[in-house]
Amino acid sequence: MGPNFSILQATDAGGRRAQLHLPHQIVETPVFMPVGTAGTVKAVPQDILESLGAQIILGNTYHLYLRPGHDPIRRMGGLHRFISWPRAMLTDSGGFQVFSLSGLRKVTDEGVRFRSHLDGSSHFFTPEHSLDVQIALGADICMAFDECTEYPADRARAQESLRLTMAWARRSLNHFRTHRDEVVWHEELGGRTQSLFGIVQGGVHTDLRRESAERLVEMDFDGYAIGGLSVGEPRELTLEVVNAVLPLLPPGKPRYVMGVGYPDEIEAYARMGVDMMDCVLPTRAARHGLRFTSEGRLNIKNKRYAEDQAPPDPACDCMVCRRYSRAYLRHLMQCREPLSGTLNTIHNLAYYLGIMQRVRGQLLAGGAAQNSTPDAVAETHPPPR
Amino acid sequence: MGPNFSILQATDAGGRRAQLHLPHQIVETPVFMPVGTAGTVKAVPQDILESLGAQIILGNTYHLYLRPGHDPIRRMGGLHRFISWPRAMLTDSGGFQVFSLSGLRKVTDEGVRFRSHLDGSSHFFTPEHSLDVQIALGADICMAFDECTEYPADRARAQESLRLTMAWARRSLNHFRTHRDEVVWHEELGGRTQSLFGIVQGGVHTDLRRESAERLVEMDFDGYAIGGLSVGEPRELTLEVVNAVLPLLPPGKPRYVMGVGYPDEIEAYARMGVDMMDCVLPTRAARHGLRFTSEGRLNIKNKRYAEDQAPPDPACDCMVCRRYSRAYLRHLMQCREPLSGTLNTIHNLAYYLGIMQRVRGQLLAGGAAQNSTPDAVAETHPPPR
Repeated sequence: MGPNFSILQATDAGGRRAQLHLPHQIVETPVFMPVGTAGTVKAVPQDILESLGAQIILGNTYHLYLRPGHDPIRRMGGLHRFISWPRAMLTDSGGFQVFSLSGLRKVTDEGVRFRSHLDGSSHFFTPEHSLDVQIALGADICMAFDECTEYPADRARAQESLRLTMAWARRSLNHFRTHRDEVVWHEELGGRTQSLFGIVQGGVHTDLRRESAERLVEMDFDGYAIGGLSVGEPRELTLEVVNAVLPLLPPGKPRYVMGVGYPDEIEAYARMGVDMMDCVLPTRAARHGLRFTSEGRLNIKNKRYAEDQAPPDPACDCMVCRRYSRAYLRHLMQCREPLSGTLNTIHNLAYYLGIMQRVRGQLLAGGAAQNSTPDAVAETHPPPR
Repeated sequence: MGPNFSILQATDAGGRRAQLHLPHQIVETPVFMPVGTAGTVKAVPQDILESLGAQIILGNTYHLYLRPGHDPIRRMGGLHRFISWPRAMLTDSGGFQVFSLSGLRKVTDEGVRFRSHLDGSSHFFTPEHSLDVQIALGADICMAFDECTEYPADRARAQESLRLTMAWARRSLNHFRTHRDEVVWHEELGGRTQSLFGIVQGGVHTDLRRESAERLVEMDFDGYAIGGLSVGEPRELTLEVVNAVLPLLPPGKPRYVMGVGYPDEIEAYARMGVDMMDCVLPTRAARHGLRFTSEGRLNIKNKRYAEDQAPPDPACDCMVCRRYSRAYLRHLMQCREPLSGTLNTIHNLAYYLGIMQRVRGQLLAGGAAQNSTPDAVAETHPPPR
């Protein structure tokens, strides 16, 4: 039994304002999910994430499997308890990191042998093992194990990759259905279980993408992701793929575009009917001094800000923009002070989460009022613990 | 006119519970002052410092002079405004960092020529220049420019160093008295000015220390620091020096021991009549995973904590100990996550500030009840802005 996904309002453009009922949180969608690779959204304490309104964060299966390990995390009550995050979480399958981070790797039909980027040790991931790890971690949402097709990939290569991903999706689902009751909080949360999303692949070949989507829908996952995007392809192609796939996905289930994007992208996709997105961009860029603001991108390292006492984003009311000046944030960056990453990340997340909050309000109002205010949004979040 | 220093209660052992009325804050003493080297207490946002009850923090003149520079800071309204810290601040004279951090340096009676540790550029600091920089920064308390005598130093070396420091103290004071009205917030804060503290030197030679103290007292500073300690000497010698100097200082003015110390040291010194202390230990140690707790020192990197779900300090009610486990903090440290330094620092500062709060309560109660609870403390802090 999948999660309850209730659509509150839909627009002509395909956008949906909905609620995704997960074991740890009712997630108001469309939602942007901050990335918490190793069990922490880099440089930001959990209570600040809560106050920013983050509803669901990601954990990376590859990283957590290597360190501290899924078995210790399960023994300690699962990922939510381990990192003290009471709201929703999602873990990726580990596939993307295996392909992008690890050394020497060998792909067979059975799975992937790879070397840890930390110590060179050898590991073997299969769809079954990825799900075992994800069930041990105990996030609210798990992802099927897939091969993330690189860009560019010709049709033959993309087709072969897709064949593997589809076979692994089937095995992921079978294994998950057999073992979903084993999640550590199963009894504590009244018999609820994790959800499993399938991942549409196929590179930039829309016919392969369609085939992938149709076959996954037949398998009947709890939700559907579009993966293998934001891997270097032009933005027009990303949009084309999303446009081709969305109509094939069942309207009553959540749709997740992985790894996007820039502020204008996440807003556009949300209006097209994408319910969930994640990206390292706001957090990673922040640590390099790049801030997304209502006035565009602002590189805080720029010398022109050396004595600029204006807030980083005059239109932003986040705790950083209310208190600190561009000059101070530039100074922290110049000195490589750890506070720099913390404050820049807080703002960027506030900006991203604020975009989604505004879009949710507009979708609820029928999608017509493109410039309605965030006040139009009626949402509930659980109070910080 | 120096700051008002009003003693609320004194004990037979020499301890005093007092209030130091500074332009930006009435500081409840004895007080521990977190070190904010480059205009930030490393890894901790200002609002968290406020919630921890930090009343006064340090800025390092040497670092701020090099980056971003005292002139830009003055133009932006002074250090308080630049870093958004509304409570009290103190700047050191730059002397200690010149001697410990900079490259090639040449000391003459006039001052010190040194090379920046950042880019090797050449700079010349005199007592007058140090005070100009400190007045531009605009902390509540400035320190006289001194030579920090290294340890070990024989009597002849310590005597020569002391001669320099005494001459520089005189020049610091003369320059300060002429220019104290130039601080940027002078008019805004109703004509108030900074304070200037003299620094007792003399190595571990108690006769030189006594001579130093007597000559500084004759000059009539606003307060007196004991410098040149915690530079490698055994703790018994540190204590001996403090014991020799304290009785020579005027009881009606604040006494500051620079650069100490461990939790038991700051508690002992506070009971002996030291009003102010600062040290990088709680913040620096935190970034290396060393936490001070009610159960002693805890090295969070230790493998024994890998699955320890207990709070770092079960007796501590700081925001970190209330929320996170040893296992999680160890994991953050293992992964070199920036959140590690932030959370460890918050706890260590809470622990240090908590010690001082408890001691203040006990001193107010007459100094007899060594185990009275923190509830006995009646203090006021301005609300966070």
